[in-house]
Amino acid sequence: MTKILIVGGVAGGASAAARARRLSEDAEIIMFERGPFVSFANCGLPYHIGGDIQERSKLLLQTPESFLARFNVDVRVMNEVVSIDRHNKSVTVKNLVDGSEYSESYDFLLLSPGAGPVVPPIPGIDNPLTHSLRNIPDMDRIIQTIQMNKPEHATVVGGGFIGLEMMEAFHQLGIKTTLIEMADQVMTPVDREMAGFAHAEIRQKGINLKLGVALQSVEYIPNDHIASVGSGESEEHQHIEGELNLTLNNGESLTTDILIMAIGVRPETKLAAEAGLQIGELGGIYTNEMMQTSDPAIYAVGDAVEEKDFVTGAQTLVPLAGPANRQGRMAADNMLGRNETYQGTQGTAICKIFDLAVASTGKNEKQLKRDGVEYEKVYVHTASHASYYPGAEIVSFKMLFDPKNGKIFGAQAVGKDGVDKRIDVMAVAQRAGMTVEQLQHLELTYAPPYGSAKDVINQAAFVASNLIKGDAKAIHYGEICDLSEDQILLDVRNPGELEAVGCLAGAINIPVDQLRQRMGELPKDKEIIIYCQVGLRGNVAYRQLVNNGYKARNLIGGYRTYKFAHA
Amino acid sequence: MTKILIVGGVAGGASAAARARRLSEDAEIIMFERGPFVSFANCGLPYHIGGDIQERSKLLLQTPESFLARFNVDVRVMNEVVSIDRHNKSVTVKNLVDGSEYSESYDFLLLSPGAGPVVPPIPGIDNPLTHSLRNIPDMDRIIQTIQMNKPEHATVVGGGFIGLEMMEAFHQLGIKTTLIEMADQVMTPVDREMAGFAHAEIRQKGINLKLGVALQSVEYIPNDHIASVGSGESEEHQHIEGELNLTLNNGESLTTDILIMAIGVRPETKLAAEAGLQIGELGGIYTNEMMQTSDPAIYAVGDAVEEKDFVTGAQTLVPLAGPANRQGRMAADNMLGRNETYQGTQGTAICKIFDLAVASTGKNEKQLKRDGVEYEKVYVHTASHASYYPGAEIVSFKMLFDPKNGKIFGAQAVGKDGVDKRIDVMAVAQRAGMTVEQLQHLELTYAPPYGSAKDVINQAAFVASNLIKGDAKAIHYGEICDLSEDQILLDVRNPGELEAVGCLAGAINIPVDQLRQRMGELPKDKEIIIYCQVGLRGNVAYRQLVNNGYKARNLIGGYRTYKFAHA
Repeated sequence: MTKILIVGGVAGGASAAARARRLSEDAEIIMFERGPFVSFANCGLPYHIGGDIQERSKLLLQTPESFLARFNVDVRVMNEVVSIDRHNKSVTVKNLVDGSEYSESYDFLLLSPGAGPVVPPIPGIDNPLTHSLRNIPDMDRIIQTIQMNKPEHATVVGGGFIGLEMMEAFHQLGIKTTLIEMADQVMTPVDREMAGFAHAEIRQKGINLKLGVALQSVEYIPNDHIASVGSGESEEHQHIEGELNLTLNNGESLTTDILIMAIGVRPETKLAAEAGLQIGELGGIYTNEMMQTSDPAIYAVGDAVEEKDFVTGAQTLVPLAGPANRQGRMAADNMLGRNETYQGTQGTAICKIFDLAVASTGKNEKQLKRDGVEYEKVYVHTASHASYYPGAEIVSFKMLFDPKNGKIFGAQAVGKDGVDKRIDVMAVAQRAGMTVEQLQHLELTYAPPYGSAKDVINQAAFVASNLIKGDAKAIHYGEICDLSEDQILLDVRNPGELEAVGCLAGAINIPVDQLRQRMGELPKDKEIIIYCQVGLRGNVAYRQLVNNGYKARNLIGGYRTYKFAHA
Repeated sequence: MTKILIVGGVAGGASAAARARRLSEDAEIIMFERGPFVSFANCGLPYHIGGDIQERSKLLLQTPESFLARFNVDVRVMNEVVSIDRHNKSVTVKNLVDGSEYSESYDFLLLSPGAGPVVPPIPGIDNPLTHSLRNIPDMDRIIQTIQMNKPEHATVVGGGFIGLEMMEAFHQLGIKTTLIEMADQVMTPVDREMAGFAHAEIRQKGINLKLGVALQSVEYIPNDHIASVGSGESEEHQHIEGELNLTLNNGESLTTDILIMAIGVRPETKLAAEAGLQIGELGGIYTNEMMQTSDPAIYAVGDAVEEKDFVTGAQTLVPLAGPANRQGRMAADNMLGRNETYQGTQGTAICKIFDLAVASTGKNEKQLKRDGVEYEKVYVHTASHASYYPGAEIVSFKMLFDPKNGKIFGAQAVGKDGVDKRIDVMAVAQRAGMTVEQLQHLELTYAPPYGSAKDVINQAAFVASNLIKGDAKAIHYGEICDLSEDQILLDVRNPGELEAVGCLAGAINIPVDQLRQRMGELPKDKEIIIYCQVGLRGNVAYRQLVNNGYKARNLIGGYRTYKFAHA
């Protein structure tokens, strides 16, 4: 009879427990969770705060009782595993309710402790109006503060998933919100120019977005207001009400009523490190492809571990729910004698930012640059479904690939419709090892309400293949500011468009449909830098010009890419 | 200078013309279209009739003038190519406006004539109230009939894409509608049990759906009503007003005010056949992988051609817009000296049926059976995104695969949300040659508004892998009626569910969470046929039972699959 202990009762741990029981009816399975809840929907917490998910109970997917009934798993909440005795294969457990300690032996131990919020040592940060959001009790505290203090202004520090979702939650509750991000962009899985679409959306919704700014200190000013018990105010109210004066590193200061710290998470490795398990260079628990730590009797999964990057093969930290769940399942397989290997993480991610979805898979340009990988990129902006059918929205799509063999490095997309679908397609294509040339042939669902006969992905693949084959010569938005004397800008849009959305200074305007007649106006001794709105007409113009002996380049993704790169 | 003639100015022809110009500035390109319009959105026609697309002009994507301005293509509408002189490389063209004929020489000829509606020789079918829908004039005639006759009842014959879309259009206009389909299901790209979801939706919307019924004869009864010109009725009205008496092959008869024949399409091969080009066994123009006909100077693309099936490698006819567009592009490449090969058609298809999307890719079960291919299948029914986030809908998903090596044969999905995405994922995975085992590792976008940590596809892959590895033993919905004396049915749902949605006669009911305690109630000498609502709890019960020495099978896809298979 195999005895399995599991540390952590959420995504990875709960998946492992359920899978282990399905494989073995007689294994003894004990799951320890130091918090009061197991298997809760941690990705749903901001949405309950904001009111999208109205019933708190919907977040509690399983209870200790339901786990016992269905899977015969002994779930011990409020029980923290405080140390591991690897030699004797046992753990010491502290009962957080009564403070007692006991030990429990194991044949296999699974660590799924997750990652905790990083709270930097900022002066004054430890105050009753500052929160982070990791679990149900955190959420309850935030909701309580909102209900009792009725904040008029909230500040979120950190423009990652949780920060963005909390920003939206506050906005939905009618609370004026400031979002502070130290980097020059939110949502770092995508590149700066793609984040520009998110910045525009965030500002359009009235959020005070401060990029490239850090929080320097916090001053808590308690409110001397005396609770009016007669009018329904609670006395508990009194001790946390107040406001925060925030000082930023750009010299500004800011008064706010509630502060959320969401600058990132760090793997929980204390237990593993103290037990002498190998910790990787990135600070996560080391695991091999079987999800085994440096001790063969101990497995680890989820946000706490380092895993293999699918694209580079290097170690990576990807604190996301999908990998955690699948790793938990595999670890259970392997503890019970199977031989499953984890196939690496692409880091496929998506975030709802008001009406936009922002998503990515694989490597972004920042990472490729950092790693010194030679790459090419394309942008397309095209309708999520047939543009003549109601509800079509622009999908802004970026694809990174190997300029020699067309191998896919990564993809990013932003838009109001069909973004998840396009990144899913790319995640599958990349995992399957497809090239951008092969993407041309993808046969995706098409009817007017759902797609286009030439889908976003097909179109991006056409553009990329044109570059690889030399049928097009690219210039990118970042190079537009550095044109030489030997280059001139040609805007091939219609004059009305230039007025409506703006244009680049110094460009000659010849609409594409007049170009064949007016080509003589262009010099043959200069390189013509062509642009249109999204790159499509630019390509038509490019082909006309080069087939007529001109030197030219086309701005990939057009003016729209250039414009939002600066948003 | 290359001279290219193109026959047909819609999807394939228009794509080829634009691509050819981008490749060569000096090629002479003439596009002939016997109708009055080029490059119109033929997939949008039913949606304009139904009112979703309000402006007719949105369907006209290009005009002869715009084609000339942008691509320097000589577009000749109302010009029909009536014969090909292959020896002299010229065609005879009839000007349909004045009846004159002329000839035009070519270096390369591209045939993109499309496919025409099949109208069977049913007595009485040729009458002013019976229509088919292929192009803008057809659409205009249908709209005119609706506007002038104000039909109270419409009948659509044929449950394919156009028939279903026309059914929905009539329903949207408040016209009572009967849909007649000779087969036992609509939307033949999916299998009968998946079509059951569509049947339920169609009937729920009040459509009179008649399956397994054919139209036998039509009697046109003109209305003697005299137009009251004074009250605004037109006299033109008079001559087409009336009603149709339909006689069906089941003895029923039916009175209707407008009849749409949409039983299918047939490749337009007259011109090709008369020129002696090879016609394939399926009745389409034969082409090789370069989209070249049996005459190397003549290419053909789109609905008129036979192409290679991606899965089987056999010839197939797939009249869909996506392949037509890509083939047009490739044919242009090859006419201008490139060497592009068409990579085969999976037949990826989707149709909106009221609130449902019904989609498929690859081979269906009917085709696999017919071809004698050994296959296994799984069904899952799971939420389109995190079930605790608003707006989640059930995706009912079927996957067909090789039971030995896990190769994907095809997939089908039905639901109100996220159906296109899942079939796109499968279309890519199949094209990339992935196995169901590999689908377990797919890392798809997940945040509560978009997906689940274990997506529909991951879940289907888990079920399929369980079958391949012997971790689960399947029984399918079709076998439930033929249980032997040595098998007993076990329903592991909660009693309330049985009452709410129904159950199978003779089943013992032990909720899965009580099974461990009550296992003794079950006989060890019989095979336990387990089922739950969708198959998930059934699998938990299955694992419990077999790990305790019972013989068992689990109904894949659960009661929901069984129930809708009979809808």
